[in-house]
Amino acid sequence: MAAEQTHKWIGFDLGGTKMLSKVYDSKFKPLGSNRKKTKAHLGVKSGLERISETIRDALTDAKVDISEIAGIGIGCPGPIDMEKGVILDPPNLGWGEVPMKKRLQQEFDCPVAVANDVDAGVFGEYRFGSAKGVRTVIGVFPGTGIGGGCIYEGSILRGSRCSCVEIGHIPVIPDGPLCGCGQRGCLEAVASRLAVSASVARSSYRGEAPFVQKAAGTDLSLIKSSTLADAIKAGDEVVEQIVRDAARHIGTALAGVIHMISPDVVVLGGGLVEAMPKLFVRDVMTAAQDRVMFAYQDSFKVVAAELGDDAGVLGAAAWAEKMVNGMSSE
Amino acid sequence: MAAEQTHKWIGFDLGGTKMLSKVYDSKFKPLGSNRKKTKAHLGVKSGLERISETIRDALTDAKVDISEIAGIGIGCPGPIDMEKGVILDPPNLGWGEVPMKKRLQQEFDCPVAVANDVDAGVFGEYRFGSAKGVRTVIGVFPGTGIGGGCIYEGSILRGSRCSCVEIGHIPVIPDGPLCGCGQRGCLEAVASRLAVSASVARSSYRGEAPFVQKAAGTDLSLIKSSTLADAIKAGDEVVEQIVRDAARHIGTALAGVIHMISPDVVVLGGGLVEAMPKLFVRDVMTAAQDRVMFAYQDSFKVVAAELGDDAGVLGAAAWAEKMVNGMSSE
Repeated sequence: MAAEQTHKWIGFDLGGTKMLSKVYDSKFKPLGSNRKKTKAHLGVKSGLERISETIRDALTDAKVDISEIAGIGIGCPGPIDMEKGVILDPPNLGWGEVPMKKRLQQEFDCPVAVANDVDAGVFGEYRFGSAKGVRTVIGVFPGTGIGGGCIYEGSILRGSRCSCVEIGHIPVIPDGPLCGCGQRGCLEAVASRLAVSASVARSSYRGEAPFVQKAAGTDLSLIKSSTLADAIKAGDEVVEQIVRDAARHIGTALAGVIHMISPDVVVLGGGLVEAMPKLFVRDVMTAAQDRVMFAYQDSFKVVAAELGDDAGVLGAAAWAEKMVNGMSSE
Repeated sequence: MAAEQTHKWIGFDLGGTKMLSKVYDSKFKPLGSNRKKTKAHLGVKSGLERISETIRDALTDAKVDISEIAGIGIGCPGPIDMEKGVILDPPNLGWGEVPMKKRLQQEFDCPVAVANDVDAGVFGEYRFGSAKGVRTVIGVFPGTGIGGGCIYEGSILRGSRCSCVEIGHIPVIPDGPLCGCGQRGCLEAVASRLAVSASVARSSYRGEAPFVQKAAGTDLSLIKSSTLADAIKAGDEVVEQIVRDAARHIGTALAGVIHMISPDVVVLGGGLVEAMPKLFVRDVMTAAQDRVMFAYQDSFKVVAAELGDDAGVLGAAAWAEKMVNGMSSE
């Protein structure tokens, strides 16, 4: 146990647009951090160099030497081989397969744990946020897509060769809008921030959403989560309808997840939820309760994530601790 | 470890129509058994007496004294509180809540483990049958309904307060046939043996299935799994079409389960599959492969159960061992 208290941890959150590293003490108090743009288009070699640089700059910011680090945890987008620590060609990086664990272990000479970024975020909420200590947590994070993750009995639920809990690809509308995965009517094609922004842009074009029209015109890239929240406050009723439809679809899809995995707690996170936590928690809960079978009614809670952007980086660091110390850290 | 080798186990499979108990040695070789009708309509008091009687008669058949028994495992229909060992009013018994564990522990003065009957069957296949030793097994058992269960890292996957993996209630046909759960178009309303028999009875009425018409007329209760298999062999093409449609729907629903839990192995069991294992394994596999996302392709196997009716009773006994001996028995 002495080792744990003198050792520090690094968390890393690798996103499609930005990367963030934080250094933590043995109690997971942050000591320093660094953030850079990912610039994924410059390729994998450059990307890996930026990752290393971000870790080194975070160490400098924290005034911590790498020799004090007990492990590095890194959350990465897309499918991951958790055993080997390999990222399996996530579409929003375009780097092909990357042996992340091997690469960082060689460079920093310390243990490295690699997880899916959503799994890392859900693990963060399980250890430090809104889902502490329960047996089963499902995380749902609507963003460009809709990420899902599960913590079961203290560990990330592992699939046969990659992560699982693909909530974004549950079919919700037969013959619905085309999804990035090639199917139609998947949850993320209907209820992600991207899907919501696209619907709102159309309403803006039609003149139904005057606040949005003024704030962002009809460019869906400019219709952020905060724009949607502000538009609802300002009285753009159609925006509220569109956002609530998305929440309802998430709740309906969740009913199927509850029948499958029966979580104690469902954590909703990501920018869209952060901008309107009450609306999402209420509407998702109502829709899920309406759809679950009798035996599952009131068997779960729906809560908003508490850690915001920190969930991923903190969860990754805590996952590294879990992998290095095993059950002794619980 | 010495204790394990001198101790024997009892497995019990409580069904809606019959109950079966077997006594096993420490290596799970069967030593004796007893079987009775459940007669659920006579009520819970009589039912519990018949359960005790069946256990005692199995011990007599095995020439084993109860003092040699290290534990009793019992698989029961419907939702179960596994922690407390309480069966939660399964519709096909109509007994209300039954504190099965407490009751049997008092009577036989030995540890009792209670599990859902499908979970027990999947655990049996995991320990002794067609899914030995993999990290994640999903079991799908089409019968009157369609039961589902999951073994994850050596244990039954537990829901927040009862079992989970309700594969039978995945929606597969929007606005489809009414399901016993109150929803429409659930997998079991479309692809259970009962659903298949109902479709076949209709074809028989229309004169499209001459073998079935001769063998069973139009009474769906007389159209058993073996009738269906024999009809296909005899050339009733419409029967083959109906059965293969059911297998396809199971595969389609399974794709969603694979996206959620990502099993290494899917075990198909129950009478319908036993009568036509090759057809089911092939058609379920094809439909599931067609529907899963690229990252999940070839990530799972589909196999037929190997233990038949024994899976449940053997799995229940092995689950009792697991609960009594914990990880030491693995």
